[in-house]
Amino acid sequence: MSRLRTYIRSLEKEYLNELFKLLRMKSISPLPGYGEELRACAKTVCAYMEDAGIKSTLYATSGNPIVYGEAPADGNAPTVLIYGHYDVQPEGDRAVWQSEPFEPVVYNGKIFARGAGDNKGQLFAHIKGYEAYKKNYGTPRVNMKYLFEGEEETGSPSLLPFAREHRDLLRADITIWSDGNIHSSGHPVLILGLKGICYIKLTVNGPCRDLHSGYAPVVGSPVWRLVWLLSLLKDRNGGIAIPGFYDGIEGPSEEGLRAIRGIPGALADYQTDWKTDDLCGAADLEAFYTKYIYEPTLNIGCIQAGDLENSKNIVPAGATAYLDVRVVPGQKPDEIIRSLRSWLDENGFEDVAMEGRGMAASFTPLDLPGVRIIKDIARDVWGKEPILYPGLGGSGPFTIFNDELGAPCVMFPYAQADQHEHGPNENLSVEGLLRGIEASAEIIARFGAGIEDE
Amino acid sequence: MSRLRTYIRSLEKEYLNELFKLLRMKSISPLPGYGEELRACAKTVCAYMEDAGIKSTLYATSGNPIVYGEAPADGNAPTVLIYGHYDVQPEGDRAVWQSEPFEPVVYNGKIFARGAGDNKGQLFAHIKGYEAYKKNYGTPRVNMKYLFEGEEETGSPSLLPFAREHRDLLRADITIWSDGNIHSSGHPVLILGLKGICYIKLTVNGPCRDLHSGYAPVVGSPVWRLVWLLSLLKDRNGGIAIPGFYDGIEGPSEEGLRAIRGIPGALADYQTDWKTDDLCGAADLEAFYTKYIYEPTLNIGCIQAGDLENSKNIVPAGATAYLDVRVVPGQKPDEIIRSLRSWLDENGFEDVAMEGRGMAASFTPLDLPGVRIIKDIARDVWGKEPILYPGLGGSGPFTIFNDELGAPCVMFPYAQADQHEHGPNENLSVEGLLRGIEASAEIIARFGAGIEDE
Repeated sequence: MSRLRTYIRSLEKEYLNELFKLLRMKSISPLPGYGEELRACAKTVCAYMEDAGIKSTLYATSGNPIVYGEAPADGNAPTVLIYGHYDVQPEGDRAVWQSEPFEPVVYNGKIFARGAGDNKGQLFAHIKGYEAYKKNYGTPRVNMKYLFEGEEETGSPSLLPFAREHRDLLRADITIWSDGNIHSSGHPVLILGLKGICYIKLTVNGPCRDLHSGYAPVVGSPVWRLVWLLSLLKDRNGGIAIPGFYDGIEGPSEEGLRAIRGIPGALADYQTDWKTDDLCGAADLEAFYTKYIYEPTLNIGCIQAGDLENSKNIVPAGATAYLDVRVVPGQKPDEIIRSLRSWLDENGFEDVAMEGRGMAASFTPLDLPGVRIIKDIARDVWGKEPILYPGLGGSGPFTIFNDELGAPCVMFPYAQADQHEHGPNENLSVEGLLRGIEASAEIIARFGAGIEDE
Repeated sequence: MSRLRTYIRSLEKEYLNELFKLLRMKSISPLPGYGEELRACAKTVCAYMEDAGIKSTLYATSGNPIVYGEAPADGNAPTVLIYGHYDVQPEGDRAVWQSEPFEPVVYNGKIFARGAGDNKGQLFAHIKGYEAYKKNYGTPRVNMKYLFEGEEETGSPSLLPFAREHRDLLRADITIWSDGNIHSSGHPVLILGLKGICYIKLTVNGPCRDLHSGYAPVVGSPVWRLVWLLSLLKDRNGGIAIPGFYDGIEGPSEEGLRAIRGIPGALADYQTDWKTDDLCGAADLEAFYTKYIYEPTLNIGCIQAGDLENSKNIVPAGATAYLDVRVVPGQKPDEIIRSLRSWLDENGFEDVAMEGRGMAASFTPLDLPGVRIIKDIARDVWGKEPILYPGLGGSGPFTIFNDELGAPCVMFPYAQADQHEHGPNENLSVEGLLRGIEASAEIIARFGAGIEDE
């Protein structure tokens, strides 16, 4: 579709100007005090969608507003839902940035700004993709829906309630999640699932204040209790001992294992990058990705008691651990949290305070007809064979689209591998932006041609 | 000896003026940058001793100087060694002090200043006690020796090397350690021993940087390794599993258990103060003190991995624990440290970095003739029956005096119970200072009468 490509390339300057306006907005969701900027950003996204011909609405939530847009097709057409987010991470350490985080600049073919890749540049590409399609071909033959939230960087707390409340509004045949990045080799990437997660905080209380450790024989130590408790949860072979933890796990699909064999790279790259040989027994890249994608985990993200800087000889008054339990399809997060509480109680840790909340995993079938269409678009726009990940080690709301809305989700990233999302010097290549706009227009074109089983 | 008492009471104002000069000196040993102030303080202590008639010398060490003083008796007399320290803790949080930490004031009958009780006021009392005795009775009939160090607040690293190098100089029949405080009931206290201690730092390294916890299935976690390692060291009944840990323990003596029965108080006082019922199974005060004094411990003073404030979902790059192992008489700290290293190696933790250094426990026999003399002095000066502690839960260099020098050590405190040593608003009651001077003079008088077996 060289006509669309030529059209898009001719508008580079205008695109950058408009995107820069979005990037200047400090729509930082993880810090307090940015509510106004978040609302202003949501309104600007709305306005851009209206300009592009997408009818859009701002929905209030208990947090930041959700931007919803709709561009209906003529007649009885299929529906594609695009999902992204306009909120961003804080800038972090300003000193490590080479330019102002909220004053975008183009340097070496890349747009540097917080949110350039994650996710303003990518959602902007979808808006402009629609506009480009419409300018060139008129009303699409596919119903396009757009769902841009403002809380993705804080775990999307309003997304599930919103989805449940607006099932009809969000009804779609497929969801394209526009986020993440392509492979470092330049191959485009499709991600077909993410794990779920249980966030768990454990707090053990001891005496009301730190005591001189001379009293250790006559006062219970919350640190030892935390160690004993944790040692009950996972054995040295990695086996998680919470009763029922592994119940219902679906395990890798044939297609999933086949896709894994297609992921390029070398095991040694990870060992070199991480400077460790301990890959938990993964002997080759296939085993590595199989574990990475299909194995549930119980990770201790943080443990703390006492004071490392002032290492006094004390019995600390308390001890805390943050766990993140990544769950795979078939596991039930709420049941895992309940089982953990019971397991602690049964083992004499009734006094330990525990907070937990969970979200389920969901993997989209790899043989979905829509996946083939997106794969074709990716191959044509990036000129390289797409890499299919049946899932990833991280977590995200696939389950909302797959299971709550019945609109199977595919993550289709436009940013390049070194976009530095969440870190300093976040960027999006201009080439990535233009290809993203083209891919977004192609989505409208090709899904408009109908979703057919192969 | 009412003549001495009257003399001492008449000099209150002069004593306070001189002590204030010492208290103004910032002889802070735990922080860097106070070397000059520490040396100046050591010199002032020297000068005060010379003024009192004690021949004194400054000994350089690899750290802060040691002040040694000598006042020989006529003829073949017994020898008493007084041990104390002129270094102090940092002021800590200035905001919690009600007056300047290094500008002493008297308020409500107490001298407020960092070091007032711990330990400048107490060592000053010994110097002035000597002076008072000499002014009133001439040359003592006991050889007095004074050992004042400047590193007590940092674990006395130079004391053992100095003692080994100067065995003849320090030869004595008894050591009186002037530090600590009397009982909150106003009863004077004699402490006959302290535990030893092994300081142990364990560091487990994982990947070279924190990784996204999505990688938890394929990268070894240093936090889990630390938990598994620690859970090998101590079971939930408090039993320490390091092979050989309990070898050689002498256990409580008959006299020790008898002394424990004489310690006043109530178990409930500790439970109320600490707001916990978990006293490790100590059902009554006798059991409490028996455990407190005679039970070795393995305490986790600090454990840390990840970041509590920014509880990211990461596999932390490393995990650290500080242990303090309190040992009792008969245990060999160096062997315990070696056994721990071997135990870790045997269990597959060869990679874990471990630093350790140890000091042995030592308890002085309670039936020592010198103990009876000090007990009599304490009873007469404070007007209440002294409480004997066969040992305490804390640690200190009793072993240097008892075992290296053969000059059995008795801790005989002058400060009152609420002296707030190491904390804000440290103080020494003027009454405690004057009684201390009197007790110091009595030591010279009564040990000069000879140390006889009962």
